[in-house]
Amino acid sequence: MNYYIGIDVGGTAIKGGIINEDGQVLTNSGLATEADKGPDVVVRNIAALVDKMLSAVGIRIAETKGIGMGVPGMVNVKKGIALFAANLGFVNYPIVEKLRAYYPSTEIQLTNDANAAALGESLYGAAKDYNTGAVMVTLGTGVGGGIVIRNALFAGNRAAGAEIGHMVIRKGGEPCTCGRRGCFEAYCSATALIRDTKRAMDKHPESKLWEIGGKDFVTGQTAFDYKDSDKVAAAVVKNYLKFLSCGLANLANVFRPEVIILGGGICNQGDDLIKPLQRMLNKELFGGRLGPMVKIVVAELGNRAGFMGAASLNLESAHIL
Amino acid sequence: MNYYIGIDVGGTAIKGGIINEDGQVLTNSGLATEADKGPDVVVRNIAALVDKMLSAVGIRIAETKGIGMGVPGMVNVKKGIALFAANLGFVNYPIVEKLRAYYPSTEIQLTNDANAAALGESLYGAAKDYNTGAVMVTLGTGVGGGIVIRNALFAGNRAAGAEIGHMVIRKGGEPCTCGRRGCFEAYCSATALIRDTKRAMDKHPESKLWEIGGKDFVTGQTAFDYKDSDKVAAAVVKNYLKFLSCGLANLANVFRPEVIILGGGICNQGDDLIKPLQRMLNKELFGGRLGPMVKIVVAELGNRAGFMGAASLNLESAHIL
Repeated sequence: MNYYIGIDVGGTAIKGGIINEDGQVLTNSGLATEADKGPDVVVRNIAALVDKMLSAVGIRIAETKGIGMGVPGMVNVKKGIALFAANLGFVNYPIVEKLRAYYPSTEIQLTNDANAAALGESLYGAAKDYNTGAVMVTLGTGVGGGIVIRNALFAGNRAAGAEIGHMVIRKGGEPCTCGRRGCFEAYCSATALIRDTKRAMDKHPESKLWEIGGKDFVTGQTAFDYKDSDKVAAAVVKNYLKFLSCGLANLANVFRPEVIILGGGICNQGDDLIKPLQRMLNKELFGGRLGPMVKIVVAELGNRAGFMGAASLNLESAHIL
Repeated sequence: MNYYIGIDVGGTAIKGGIINEDGQVLTNSGLATEADKGPDVVVRNIAALVDKMLSAVGIRIAETKGIGMGVPGMVNVKKGIALFAANLGFVNYPIVEKLRAYYPSTEIQLTNDANAAALGESLYGAAKDYNTGAVMVTLGTGVGGGIVIRNALFAGNRAAGAEIGHMVIRKGGEPCTCGRRGCFEAYCSATALIRDTKRAMDKHPESKLWEIGGKDFVTGQTAFDYKDSDKVAAAVVKNYLKFLSCGLANLANVFRPEVIILGGGICNQGDDLIKPLQRMLNKELFGGRLGPMVKIVVAELGNRAGFMGAASLNLESAHIL
């Protein structure tokens, strides 16, 4: 059996696992990131987590095929540098070299966390039965993305692409954290949905949405929870789905993947989200029924997608386009 | 020497060439498409053109590595079917099988014409020195696109993707031929620029634009021709560049290519177009100066891009993602 270590570095926790060549998780675990103590401490914690998982499986690092790591923000894959991740304090940080100090003869691969998750879901999760291509869209604080083409990760020149959240879908629209206006993220992140729910409450003091106890309690679920009993909530959801289907149709027309994998808490809505979205997407696909359909599926691996995808970077079949 | 035949089927003319493994054009020629006489006549004309070029070089079909063909509209690459091309009368037309009747033992490859041109420019033209990836954007009657990743063509599932003109950049905006509203094409095709120039003339009877003799004489060049002497024309150009840079920035953020190749008549503007556009794009790139820049270049091969790219589909190194 071959062993592949995967690490998913998050703002608050580092998650990790060891998988075999079939994608079976042999062990998985987590540790606090402690980003506030600086990047060298984060790397020390990564090493501690790796060691912990090695002893859980009862193997030595030399018996593994290597470590794959997904980190937030922009990365330089070739040089192994975390270029910028605001919430982790990474600025031009040579994370691979630093981790290699702990494991001098181990293969270490780096990618962006959203890309790692997309690869994990493509190989082992929601898109494992689709082999020509998948786009993963994660609706969270922002809108993250990952693109998989024939089971290889595609992230553009120096892995700086796949920033699908930063595709303008309404020029001149809502301001985005990236500095542009009208980005997909500025309409379809959980953050945007919360903003729109609060705005609707302000405009409609009569809305049942107020039952939750005030605007401070709004989450990405609130509008969905009230959509069947409150017109205001229904309008918020309808508008959200319009923008979401618009962004997904753009990705479908440009990449024409077999499948779009949706991730993030909003997906807990299940069919209430996916069914209308699929109908709307079908109508917006270029060429209508002449071309192949693009199926929307919900991410399956949850927290595991990141470390599983990262681990797979050391598979012999692994390939970054 | 190896010989590769390339065919570019257009609405009015079929262009073709024979190239060698270094991309040298050994002969090139053209014939009327005669689309009005039906698809079988188009195929007969393709064969006539192939025969003409073979005798120009003085070789037999068996001495070539095969024929590559680019046709407009949607195609099924694997099955060799032209799914739909309104101006050619192709509906589910098995064009490869039909051409094989003329050349039974010849390798025949099919792709979409915009993809063929992108591949031609990437391998032999404006992007030949950039190897990680290129996106070609052709500003014509519509906005066509082609995506090349590490010298391989990427066109999505069943080659139905790369429809970059049909990415909405202003939700709810101008109607597009595809049925959606606010597509990149609805703002940045030559057709859209002509529409906007005419609208500006209607609003501004005092504009110098009227010197051309009336709205019937407006082309994609008109606003550019008057931009230095007429405020109305300058505003049309400024607005056009805003939308164009928005669409290019979307493609840059999603694909992060090393280079964007611009094609179409509007590129005759040269630096008047490219310089401001590059400045605007640089400002909109995700991650600003942290990531790699995306260079805008003008297509170099003109009419030859299509058949050169098509011909290269039979190169041993050819690869469709």
